[in-house]
Amino acid sequence: MEKVSIVMGSKSDLPVMREASKILDYFGIKNDVSIMSAHRTPKRAAEFSESAIDNGTKVIIAGAGGAAHLAGVMASLTTLPVIGVPIKSSNSIDGWDSLLSTVQMPSGIPVATVAINGAKNAGILAAQMIGISNQEISNAVKKFKTDLAQKVEKDNASL
Amino acid sequence: MEKVSIVMGSKSDLPVMREASKILDYFGIKNDVSIMSAHRTPKRAAEFSESAIDNGTKVIIAGAGGAAHLAGVMASLTTLPVIGVPIKSSNSIDGWDSLLSTVQMPSGIPVATVAINGAKNAGILAAQMIGISNQEISNAVKKFKTDLAQKVEKDNASL
Amino acid sequence: MEKVSIVMGSKSDLPVMREASKILDYFGIKNDVSIMSAHRTPKRAAEFSESAIDNGTKVIIAGAGGAAHLAGVMASLTTLPVIGVPIKSSNSIDGWDSLLSTVQMPSGIPVATVAINGAKNAGILAAQMIGISNQEISNAVKKFKTDLAQKVEKDNASL
Amino acid sequence: MEKVSIVMGSKSDLPVMREASKILDYFGIKNDVSIMSAHRTPKRAAEFSESAIDNGTKVIIAGAGGAAHLAGVMASLTTLPVIGVPIKSSNSIDGWDSLLSTVQMPSGIPVATVAINGAKNAGILAAQMIGISNQEISNAVKKFKTDLAQKVEKDNASL
Amino acid sequence: MEKVSIVMGSKSDLPVMREASKILDYFGIKNDVSIMSAHRTPKRAAEFSESAIDNGTKVIIAGAGGAAHLAGVMASLTTLPVIGVPIKSSNSIDGWDSLLSTVQMPSGIPVATVAINGAKNAGILAAQMIGISNQEISNAVKKFKTDLAQKVEKDNASL
Amino acid sequence: MEKVSIVMGSKSDLPVMREASKILDYFGIKNDVSIMSAHRTPKRAAEFSESAIDNGTKVIIAGAGGAAHLAGVMASLTTLPVIGVPIKSSNSIDGWDSLLSTVQMPSGIPVATVAINGAKNAGILAAQMIGISNQEISNAVKKFKTDLAQKVEKDNASL
Amino acid sequence: MEKVSIVMGSKSDLPVMREASKILDYFGIKNDVSIMSAHRTPKRAAEFSESAIDNGTKVIIAGAGGAAHLAGVMASLTTLPVIGVPIKSSNSIDGWDSLLSTVQMPSGIPVATVAINGAKNAGILAAQMIGISNQEISNAVKKFKTDLAQKVEKDNASL
Amino acid sequence: MEKVSIVMGSKSDLPVMREASKILDYFGIKNDVSIMSAHRTPKRAAEFSESAIDNGTKVIIAGAGGAAHLAGVMASLTTLPVIGVPIKSSNSIDGWDSLLSTVQMPSGIPVATVAINGAKNAGILAAQMIGISNQEISNAVKKFKTDLAQKVEKDNASL
Repeated sequence: MEKVSIVMGSKSDLPVMREASKILDYFGIKNDVSIMSAHRTPKRAAEFSESAIDNGTKVIIAGAGGAAHLAGVMASLTTLPVIGVPIKSSNSIDGWDSLLSTVQMPSGIPVATVAINGAKNAGILAAQMIGISNQEISNAVKKFKTDLAQKVEKDNASL
Repeated sequence: MEKVSIVMGSKSDLPVMREASKILDYFGIKNDVSIMSAHRTPKRAAEFSESAIDNGTKVIIAGAGGAAHLAGVMASLTTLPVIGVPIKSSNSIDGWDSLLSTVQMPSGIPVATVAINGAKNAGILAAQMIGISNQEISNAVKKFKTDLAQKVEKDNASL
Repeated sequence: MEKVSIVMGSKSDLPVMREASKILDYFGIKNDVSIMSAHRTPKRAAEFSESAIDNGTKVIIAGAGGAAHLAGVMASLTTLPVIGVPIKSSNSIDGWDSLLSTVQMPSGIPVATVAINGAKNAGILAAQMIGISNQEISNAVKKFKTDLAQKVEKDNASL
Repeated sequence: MEKVSIVMGSKSDLPVMREASKILDYFGIKNDVSIMSAHRTPKRAAEFSESAIDNGTKVIIAGAGGAAHLAGVMASLTTLPVIGVPIKSSNSIDGWDSLLSTVQMPSGIPVATVAINGAKNAGILAAQMIGISNQEISNAVKKFKTDLAQKVEKDNASL
Repeated sequence: MEKVSIVMGSKSDLPVMREASKILDYFGIKNDVSIMSAHRTPKRAAEFSESAIDNGTKVIIAGAGGAAHLAGVMASLTTLPVIGVPIKSSNSIDGWDSLLSTVQMPSGIPVATVAINGAKNAGILAAQMIGISNQEISNAVKKFKTDLAQKVEKDNASL
Repeated sequence: MEKVSIVMGSKSDLPVMREASKILDYFGIKNDVSIMSAHRTPKRAAEFSESAIDNGTKVIIAGAGGAAHLAGVMASLTTLPVIGVPIKSSNSIDGWDSLLSTVQMPSGIPVATVAINGAKNAGILAAQMIGISNQEISNAVKKFKTDLAQKVEKDNASL
Repeated sequence: MEKVSIVMGSKSDLPVMREASKILDYFGIKNDVSIMSAHRTPKRAAEFSESAIDNGTKVIIAGAGGAAHLAGVMASLTTLPVIGVPIKSSNSIDGWDSLLSTVQMPSGIPVATVAINGAKNAGILAAQMIGISNQEISNAVKKFKTDLAQKVEKDNASL
Repeated sequence: MEKVSIVMGSKSDLPVMREASKILDYFGIKNDVSIMSAHRTPKRAAEFSESAIDNGTKVIIAGAGGAAHLAGVMASLTTLPVIGVPIKSSNSIDGWDSLLSTVQMPSGIPVATVAINGAKNAGILAAQMIGISNQEISNAVKKFKTDLAQKVEKDNASL
């Protein structure tokens, strides 16, 4: 079965990144969560990315703040799609640094960047990627979007 | 066979967006290219996104400049993964508006955003997504990355 | 009688957008308030805009945060003037993303953008538009501006 | 018949602001063009705004660069809707200053701001405002938008 | 005797602008404080500036937030030096809009801009301007700067 | 007679800063122009500022780019008013760094900042400061502003 | 033995800058802490920098906010490496001004800039510089980095 | 003898980064220049950093554009001081992304960042670091700064 790996640069990123895990659980997609740092544990980060395919990972979600290099490190060492979550942490300038460090990747090594602190959307995007070849997941995303629309309709009706 | 659909908001985006098509061709991935505007042809854009799955599309790549809504429109009407390319066009503020309009999507509807003018990376990212369940494409991406590394090594050797 | 339609992307935008309704009430202009999302309920948003003229709407006010596309969606599907309110919500970068996504519209499809969180001004602007051909509303705006000036004079006198 | 007044802060703004006049001509809307400066000819600017209604003006379009106050001056002295065009001139920081000086108006005195250098859209917006009570103009805008869509379709067909 | 006039756009600017008055009092420079708005009471603002010289004012200090035009209005109608204080108020984007609207004045009409919320520095700058031809004030500024240095030395000694 | 001292950080600033000298010549105000660097010739810069009063200088105008400290150095060592011109040079980020380094001075040590590359306005501002106690200069500024207005009127008439 | 000198522009910078001292203590590197201001005590700052080598200082760490010139002043008067810490203080725009004033130094006079509020990193960087020729300190930095990695591993294990 | 290693992410960075080599040659400091990419040749970058000490390198200078991770990769795998040069390349947003990706490093892993495109300053800073324990190099830097000052004096004299 497909698995998504969620990594983050620091324990302080957990409240944000946990949302990725939650929504993947909701979709019934297996996922593991790890803390590793592009700068403090560079080798572990490299090994993680290099062995991800062999470990059954299909998509990597990486969140980091400030000069956020973790998603880029992941992307540099695997052919799996890597989703980057720029985090607005205490050591970032309102998220601008995290966003630009994550999205402005050089030609050849893309990172699929979502909104600042958008870990939930990262999980949904991972599900959509897996849904390319997995009808069940694709259907689950469809249902999720229908529910989302209904919630908006309900909010509207409550006015 | 998997197909990627490349859409852009204006003919003037073609020089940038063509790179997505080229790299997909290189990977041997079928792709079609269309011009449609979130604001000038909103219905056509909606229909395109809604019928994309039935038309055999597996990933949508959407490029636009300024208040770049095209990728968001695509994402709102399909469960396929949508890759957004923020374009630095004459009607954008150095790409800042295109980037923020593309990446800062609300919870529930992600757009996988690449670098400003990063259409080539959008194509590579699409290949990586397809590669999740297609070993041949995954291998092609692997070879591409090896070639990329060799080019850097060669540049270094030429110093 | 003229009616203004106020739409917003999320229930959380209500505290900001309510100000548009209040000032329109003050001017004696009929208005309705709805929640609909460019991304979560795209079809409802499209239908709303397309049927606005037939429903007696003269001006649409649309507020949204982050990659704020709602005003653009409205503008793409009607010939009515659309006023955009960029909202500084929890999912925006200090309002920069909302502002740029709202104001930087492509040639052909304008959105009349007011200040960040400027819903009250959106209501006043709608009244001014209606006042073009409605002397009573025009007079009401004039009185409003006189009152505004008097309040400043009173604040000055209180020093 | 309705008239739109187009004002700009400097002769150097003419290449940009002329587009507003052109599109209004296209819609068959009478318009006059004047140069006046909020800072260099403040009295003339004030008189212009104050007498605009008596002169038959229905909408004012004001374009300026840098610390762009012209639209604000207009808005402060009339009850007519005022459309602001932030201009990216040689004395502006890439248009950021013009945009913020135009759009961030205080509560009570809105300026309907369009995109940087968006004079054509200012003209279209003025037409839409007039179209609220003028079916002919409203129809002309409708036709304009249909033509716009067809141009996109044609660009697409030419691929 | 020389007088400095302090004006601000709104009563909510008083906590910031009061600092200008306090430091002028400290220097023994007569000053008056008024609330007037470039946009809400444009005529009063114009009259104030035009009659400032006749009223004995030597320097005008103007503070405002958002699309901060008050200092520019003052500067447009007098030959007195005008000091602008960009205010980071609730209706500003972290002060960026106030700063750019105040400092980026067009050729011919300068505003002497100080730091965001820098009303105290505005008062000191006014004193320095008056000190050009008033030895007593110049001496008072000199003493102020010596005291300032001593405070830093004392802070250092306390480590 | 009053003298204004114009200093700049590098010879490459001369094309911009020369405008300050030109307009002061026009007003008949004596002025001297020097190159000195806050970072490359810090002692000379310090001596210049410290001896400025004794050398008959009444106002200092300082222009620099990048981390523009020259105006701040001047202001730290004299009680004369110091006008800062942020320069958009090859080693600046579009003038943002020059602007912020010049205007955001700490409490106690103001720099009267004008627009980016606004050397002409710096000269006018210096004239206005001198005009506080010099009726002739004040009259010259008045005439200058009248001429400026007439030029705008003439541009308008030429439409 | 090598000594590092830590200077800051204001007592209010102490909570941030203290971290530099703490980490240097941890590495067993002698350090002294002083308050001096580029703008309020310019002569003391100049003397400090000029006499730093004679006082046994090997690296200077300078922290300041707003138009942060202190590191630049230090760098202009010594050949020692100077590390700049941009401080996000109450008189700064989210640290943008401090960062640009510190890092954008002109050709010839570098400042080694660390992250906003990155005083701890400034201390580590100073240790790394000293470690170039001091094996003991180099080893201490190595151990510090190993501990850092272990802390991340431990955080990961605790998930 | 001390050696400085200069690395850059792409051959297109050579025109900028060459300046670091030139000034080190001028100081008589041995240096080697290599192209390696944090994202395209991550392993080579890692090996380079890990073996730098054994290869006799005392300082690493790393230049890169866009999401500039090269300096951070270097810093993560060595205890040598690493100087980062943010490069304003075609794939960067005016250097903002390069600057923030380089300077905003997390606690524990500093990068000594110089100005955008400031490769010459990176070379000077490296010389200053080596000069901590090498009197000859320290003297060479002193002479360089004296020459620099004389050039400014000469430029001034030529006015």
